[in-house]
Amino acid sequence: MPVKKFSDVEATEIKAAKDTTIQVLIAPDEAPHFAMRRIVMQPGGSMPVHTNTVEHEQIVLGGRARVGLGDQIYEVEKDDVLFIPAGQPHFYETIGDEAFEFLCSVPNKPDKIEIVE
Amino acid sequence: MPVKKFSDVEATEIKAAKDTTIQVLIAPDEAPHFAMRRIVMQPGGSMPVHTNTVEHEQIVLGGRARVGLGDQIYEVEKDDVLFIPAGQPHFYETIGDEAFEFLCSVPNKPDKIEIVE
Repeated sequence: MPVKKFSDVEATEIKAAKDTTIQVLIAPDEAPHFAMRRIVMQPGGSMPVHTNTVEHEQIVLGGRARVGLGDQIYEVEKDDVLFIPAGQPHFYETIGDEAFEFLCSVPNKPDKIEIVE
Repeated sequence: MPVKKFSDVEATEIKAAKDTTIQVLIAPDEAPHFAMRRIVMQPGGSMPVHTNTVEHEQIVLGGRARVGLGDQIYEVEKDDVLFIPAGQPHFYETIGDEAFEFLCSVPNKPDKIEIVE
């Protein structure tokens, strides 16, 4: 896969989220250390408070969202960079009429998602 | 660093390249497995054929470029994804009047850049 376009990659729904898809742009079997995914939340989309067993390195490509990281809430927009440590509770809620689109890179390690009630 | 903006991060020149800067958005001491950098080449900017000892996971954020990967040449634009294996000779040459901007994530391992004559 030397070069791909977003449109080359299948989008699948994230069941734990609302109106949200994920595309695995660089998969764990394509790269030795980490994977790159693109996540798109339609306007009104959200993902409830959850934890992952791997850290996230994220960059916002478009749209806006309210993002909860631990006990802080941030409003993020295009060109914002987020680091979410492994195990930190976090959530997303879109703001406005535009889809919220971001990259999320994770190490090639087992990930377990737990929704925080 | 839960959230940063591009403008929060210092840009430094890449000496081996022409009219090109790098910003370390997520540094090796901020994340356990990999770093995220943003590279901007001004129109006319370029980077000669070189190798790295680490792989690159890249995504084009804006502009266009001719990118050589091994013995293939690709024209890339916004929303294109590139995987460059460790050790693969590669180069960049901007196309057109717009800055060529891309993300480049690398594992937290020693990197040695060698220009290929």
